[in-house]
Amino acid sequence: MKRLKDYVSTIPDFPKKGIMFRDITSVLQDADGFALAIDEMIKLLDGVDFDVLVGAEARGFVLGAPIAYKLHKPFVLARKKGKLPRETITKEYALEYGTTAIEMHKDSIKKGQRVVLVDDLLATGGTIKAARELVEELGGEIAKIIFLIELVDLKGREKLKNCDVASVITYEGE
Amino acid sequence: MKRLKDYVSTIPDFPKKGIMFRDITSVLQDADGFALAIDEMIKLLDGVDFDVLVGAEARGFVLGAPIAYKLHKPFVLARKKGKLPRETITKEYALEYGTTAIEMHKDSIKKGQRVVLVDDLLATGGTIKAARELVEELGGEIAKIIFLIELVDLKGREKLKNCDVASVITYEGE
Repeated sequence: MKRLKDYVSTIPDFPKKGIMFRDITSVLQDADGFALAIDEMIKLLDGVDFDVLVGAEARGFVLGAPIAYKLHKPFVLARKKGKLPRETITKEYALEYGTTAIEMHKDSIKKGQRVVLVDDLLATGGTIKAARELVEELGGEIAKIIFLIELVDLKGREKLKNCDVASVITYEGE
Repeated sequence: MKRLKDYVSTIPDFPKKGIMFRDITSVLQDADGFALAIDEMIKLLDGVDFDVLVGAEARGFVLGAPIAYKLHKPFVLARKKGKLPRETITKEYALEYGTTAIEMHKDSIKKGQRVVLVDDLLATGGTIKAARELVEELGGEIAKIIFLIELVDLKGREKLKNCDVASVITYEGE
């Protein structure tokens, strides 16, 4: 039986030289791989009490939406700047060169709600740290942060102190 | 009981003057609204024989992924240019000003596969027409194209001739 890692493609030097890109599209485009990915992520939420699931654009939408649907939870989008039409709050964060920003609708989280954050991959953690800060500014509490893949060497967890963080697959020293 | 249309927000003059933006984030961020949206879209696929579901970036991911998961189908991404790491084919299409492009992985559709295309909203139909052309270039056949919302006045269906097209909600003359 294929393990989840067997479905992940690795593309050397994408999007630039020196990066081993872990590609989840090969997981998604296999019905069994996709089901396994979602079911394993749902297992990470066993016993977690939460109200809302937030997905980070864009691959966080692909994984977060089926989890929210299956668990009958609201699904909230953390989007790139300028995409959300109602009143938003914004968080800038650093990239290797320059900065970028994500936004959430102000009414998407209610004070005191327990929030699960979802993304496909934890690398340096910039996006998910910004999403966490947005959730907390809106009065939400982070119940758990889950990823399909974690690149352990990039130490993204250090940006997510005091959060319960879990990943289905990890890559370390490879 | 709330109908699906009751969950949709309408934002006048977004992203620019004169446009009535139909916002689905208010559907998604209600657990009942989200479940209703996905379940109604799945009903549009009753009796449709298909192999693969393709979602258009980015809101097509939010709706397409839960449908694919629930029906145990492969989920393929039609993404904006430069986002997919393996070998792709690209289709440019016209916007009001200038052009844009979407891409799919060459190995994402196999010859003869029956494909369902999913997006959140049918407006002028440029994106979904480009996605359809990519699928057909890869040797796939369009089994059906489904939307949550259709803006009838914008006549997007005229770009999707000879396809079975269906939408859960329509807006016309409003």
